[in-house]
Amino acid sequence: MIIVMKPDATPQDLERVSDAIKAKGLGVNISRGKERTVVGAIGDERILTEIPLGAFQGVESVHKILQPFKLVSREFRKQDTVITFPNGVVLGGPEIQVMAGPCAVESEDQLLYVAERVKKAGAKILRGGAFKPRTSPYTFQGLGEEGLLHLAKAREKTGLLIITELMDPRDLPAMMKYTDIIQIGARNMQNFRLLSDVGEVSKPVLLKRGLSATIKEFLMAAEYIASRGNQEIILCERGIRTFETMTRNTLDLNAVPVLKSLTHLPVLVDPSHGTGRWDLVIPMARAGVAAGCDALMIEVHNNPEQAFSDGEESLIPDKFDNLMSEVRKVASAVGRFVA
Amino acid sequence: MIIVMKPDATPQDLERVSDAIKAKGLGVNISRGKERTVVGAIGDERILTEIPLGAFQGVESVHKILQPFKLVSREFRKQDTVITFPNGVVLGGPEIQVMAGPCAVESEDQLLYVAERVKKAGAKILRGGAFKPRTSPYTFQGLGEEGLLHLAKAREKTGLLIITELMDPRDLPAMMKYTDIIQIGARNMQNFRLLSDVGEVSKPVLLKRGLSATIKEFLMAAEYIASRGNQEIILCERGIRTFETMTRNTLDLNAVPVLKSLTHLPVLVDPSHGTGRWDLVIPMARAGVAAGCDALMIEVHNNPEQAFSDGEESLIPDKFDNLMSEVRKVASAVGRFVA
Amino acid sequence: MIIVMKPDATPQDLERVSDAIKAKGLGVNISRGKERTVVGAIGDERILTEIPLGAFQGVESVHKILQPFKLVSREFRKQDTVITFPNGVVLGGPEIQVMAGPCAVESEDQLLYVAERVKKAGAKILRGGAFKPRTSPYTFQGLGEEGLLHLAKAREKTGLLIITELMDPRDLPAMMKYTDIIQIGARNMQNFRLLSDVGEVSKPVLLKRGLSATIKEFLMAAEYIASRGNQEIILCERGIRTFETMTRNTLDLNAVPVLKSLTHLPVLVDPSHGTGRWDLVIPMARAGVAAGCDALMIEVHNNPEQAFSDGEESLIPDKFDNLMSEVRKVASAVGRFVA
Amino acid sequence: MIIVMKPDATPQDLERVSDAIKAKGLGVNISRGKERTVVGAIGDERILTEIPLGAFQGVESVHKILQPFKLVSREFRKQDTVITFPNGVVLGGPEIQVMAGPCAVESEDQLLYVAERVKKAGAKILRGGAFKPRTSPYTFQGLGEEGLLHLAKAREKTGLLIITELMDPRDLPAMMKYTDIIQIGARNMQNFRLLSDVGEVSKPVLLKRGLSATIKEFLMAAEYIASRGNQEIILCERGIRTFETMTRNTLDLNAVPVLKSLTHLPVLVDPSHGTGRWDLVIPMARAGVAAGCDALMIEVHNNPEQAFSDGEESLIPDKFDNLMSEVRKVASAVGRFVA
Repeated sequence: MIIVMKPDATPQDLERVSDAIKAKGLGVNISRGKERTVVGAIGDERILTEIPLGAFQGVESVHKILQPFKLVSREFRKQDTVITFPNGVVLGGPEIQVMAGPCAVESEDQLLYVAERVKKAGAKILRGGAFKPRTSPYTFQGLGEEGLLHLAKAREKTGLLIITELMDPRDLPAMMKYTDIIQIGARNMQNFRLLSDVGEVSKPVLLKRGLSATIKEFLMAAEYIASRGNQEIILCERGIRTFETMTRNTLDLNAVPVLKSLTHLPVLVDPSHGTGRWDLVIPMARAGVAAGCDALMIEVHNNPEQAFSDGEESLIPDKFDNLMSEVRKVASAVGRFVA
Repeated sequence: MIIVMKPDATPQDLERVSDAIKAKGLGVNISRGKERTVVGAIGDERILTEIPLGAFQGVESVHKILQPFKLVSREFRKQDTVITFPNGVVLGGPEIQVMAGPCAVESEDQLLYVAERVKKAGAKILRGGAFKPRTSPYTFQGLGEEGLLHLAKAREKTGLLIITELMDPRDLPAMMKYTDIIQIGARNMQNFRLLSDVGEVSKPVLLKRGLSATIKEFLMAAEYIASRGNQEIILCERGIRTFETMTRNTLDLNAVPVLKSLTHLPVLVDPSHGTGRWDLVIPMARAGVAAGCDALMIEVHNNPEQAFSDGEESLIPDKFDNLMSEVRKVASAVGRFVA
Repeated sequence: MIIVMKPDATPQDLERVSDAIKAKGLGVNISRGKERTVVGAIGDERILTEIPLGAFQGVESVHKILQPFKLVSREFRKQDTVITFPNGVVLGGPEIQVMAGPCAVESEDQLLYVAERVKKAGAKILRGGAFKPRTSPYTFQGLGEEGLLHLAKAREKTGLLIITELMDPRDLPAMMKYTDIIQIGARNMQNFRLLSDVGEVSKPVLLKRGLSATIKEFLMAAEYIASRGNQEIILCERGIRTFETMTRNTLDLNAVPVLKSLTHLPVLVDPSHGTGRWDLVIPMARAGVAAGCDALMIEVHNNPEQAFSDGEESLIPDKFDNLMSEVRKVASAVGRFVA
Repeated sequence: MIIVMKPDATPQDLERVSDAIKAKGLGVNISRGKERTVVGAIGDERILTEIPLGAFQGVESVHKILQPFKLVSREFRKQDTVITFPNGVVLGGPEIQVMAGPCAVESEDQLLYVAERVKKAGAKILRGGAFKPRTSPYTFQGLGEEGLLHLAKAREKTGLLIITELMDPRDLPAMMKYTDIIQIGARNMQNFRLLSDVGEVSKPVLLKRGLSATIKEFLMAAEYIASRGNQEIILCERGIRTFETMTRNTLDLNAVPVLKSLTHLPVLVDPSHGTGRWDLVIPMARAGVAAGCDALMIEVHNNPEQAFSDGEESLIPDKFDNLMSEVRKVASAVGRFVA
């Protein structure tokens, strides 16, 4: 950590800063420049985040030189994290995995139909919401545990792995029975209690980036999970909030190579939420793969006009077939493959 | 709701849109312009949010003409909501209430000292976090229930009302015993389960605006609470996330008069989080009052250099005295008063 | 245009709105719903943008149903605009064109070396700034007309087409002598006089999207140029400003398929400015092509450590060779090609 | 400037960084920590901005410790800049100046009527656009030089000072004849040639903050003007672009005290553009004054329903009377005054 002193800082100000750093067991390097005196803290600066150095008298600015995350960092672990599921499906290797299915589980029939179609097209993981975070209290909130039962049925019938969202720590026991991957939604990316809870179970977690989360905050949320013991985390870029209104979100594909350089965790791209428009999903799925993602998540609905939620961004199964065929070609162009 | 058809929409496309609207019990008005055909749905369009009209074939765009919130709207209830606490303190009337105290409860001594000082300066409500949402899993997470006990002690000694944050539904029973106002933090503004839970209790709720929440989403979060029965909600503007890096957040004071026009709920401004810099807190507290807010929330710490969190934005008690004296003058200039 | 009246609007308010619309020669459709009365203007609503209907008494909100741009819209002209240069190079067809070269022209030697290298790798257009918009008045501002002469020399020696930026209308005559494509920079996207000026010449224009320009504003800027007669416009997505700080800008690849659906103009992606980091340029160039762009612009410098500007985001010629080979494969996967 | 080396940087990497710094005449301080080696450059780091240190091999990150602006900084000049006009009007002292008038000059009669009204209410400066930057090429572009003549007439009749916008360097000679303050609009904040041009004349310049300009960029734009000799610059906060859609822009009042701490230049607030809604102008004008601004700019129109531009955000003269009376009280509460 680098602390820049104000031009009018007194020797006492400087001493108090030095003392506070030394009190934490770190060393101090003082560099007196022509315009500013600069204090360098030598040692693991993460210990210093507890001290509000910016509030010290005479301090002009504080610059961190290390990333605040550790377990999830590429520096901590060089090799890519590869998640192998009991049925042999591998996420994080050369194969790009596709998760597909309806936004919300609406009925057993709907789910089974979509499950069969996405499986046939090559997806190995079925998505579907049982508990739905909705911006209005007056709209469909999901089937709840009944939805989990439909997902379990679909898994049994198709052999697909299941991913569904956890919104409330009180639903975790039920979730553990039925799902293969636990999804933490964008609006809960900084629900720190929920992160801690899923950090203590032994199922892979898909963590969605918050609507306005920086990449650093995104990785700190992953660090919460990892710090509790669960290292099987998939990071999901699903679009950030900007001033642009033609799309629901701005899919930040820069984040894909940035994340791949900073962390060993696998990175998934969700072009359905990342655009909010079904007509943009195929080109942006291609772009996600070209940018280097390890997995895709796609909303597929048998009849988007009657979808209970997110109909605007759902592909019909025939279009999903097209998506898979196009993505397959791009994957191959970047040295990866899709089943 | 207004549905604009594409120039190449077929009569069948138009019919399917009309039928879907009629099926929900609403009327239809069709206007054939030179460039576009436009369908108007007549009746309460909130019913239509369940239908993804944007996903219908031949539809170009969908325009909502009503706000999606109802109970919290000024249209539903003309008069301002006024909250009267058992000890006679009134929030939402001509008196501007000030909530002040440390970011986190650190010890009984610290809390009591700050409580006495802010009380003497004119504050009637004491803030202090017992459960702290922290972006790093490695930093101080709050004293938990012990913190609640310190708050209860401070209330007993000073007569101040207490506000503290709820992060997890499992803490709600403990919270109900010790606090006078339940705070929902910015990161939980769309934690819909938590909103529903505090909607079912009978204590006022302070709802903080999410870091990148639109005003519409903010009011929909309040609607979640109100729809469960709890109408005593205080809305807190605490800064939004923008590209500007000189301040921690951008305090959106435009939101104050916008909210006052859209809702009957009281509006509070938090210049501590809204700037992230103690040297900006006083001018922005003044500005919040000048913009028309009903209450302020200010972080005050006896020794910001040793604060466990948010030291950078905390005022020392002497500066808080200055703040109160400056705010008092501005309140009077806009026809309000501060005790 | 749809005008929604307030619930308490009077019949006189409604009449004044209707009269204002009729006075412009448009028809009026009035729909009286249960909650609101809605006025529809029938005819070309672009005429109405001169009337501030939102300022009329009794008006709650105004919804435009047509896009404000016309000449550049896909609706106006279905087929893609294809630009054919005198030397036979075609932009906007199946071949993806690559523009490459240094941020700034620094010397004749530097420029010629880079020109030879990018030509060999497959680029057909050489970029290089003679007039440089710099955020600091104390940094290198470009070689000016001398830079133009170096560019002309490079064209002569290599046969590459030349693109360079115009910052000031007074430089247009010189520019017309030396360049093949006139670039309008992001910071001048709404320099309306400059747009009008380049709309009156007969050279293709590359228009960069402003740092916080919406897609609609971007197309309106193109409409300025087109409305003066020059229809050969290339739209450049170069990243937008968001809260993320790990990258210089957030490359908005959603904009590529959105633009392709709204306009017939060719779309170029600039991953150098769109990321600000040379290590992200190759994956994001691949992603741009996968998203459907028609051209790429890449900063290449023989020695980025000594570049006068943008060294951080420049590729060395060897890395540019890699980029071309990777982009070639992705282009082929999406049915396009790179020379 | 602080340069942080990567953990795997070689001694050669370190040496090349040191050499580059020394070659510019600065000293070097090397601090070898446990996790990173850090290089400090000793001397005026502004010289180093020409070197792309971030592009050097082995460099992880670069931290600037000085602000890049100099002449406009509070560090360079402690006292507030005070601008005194030939007629004795003073801007930047205890009196808060109000500039008011129509968005665009539409006719002599309109301008004279509004001028008389705003003068009577206490404004001492008349605003009015002769050259109008409009997002559509099909809308009213201003009266041009005829507008300047009307402004000159209004000055003659009322004694008000005149401010109007310069869009094109070619209009500067005409502008010099007729106006007292030259306005540079938000869309031209980084039109560096225009900034240089107005830096060479001897009239005060009002510089509007760009729609997505950081405060640092805003001050660098002012530095462009100051570096050419013209030090009479008024900084205008007029709202920034965010995701919020209920207001045209988000007025960033945090910027007022931030600017007052960083620069000696006077700061003006424009609540008309900063909100885009006439009903928000009065509360936000009050808030601007409470935050510490030195001047206000307010759009006033005799008949907003017939305004050629910005009718939605214009006050009628009667409302402007109210604004002045409310602002007067708040000014007094913060130790300032309005005539």
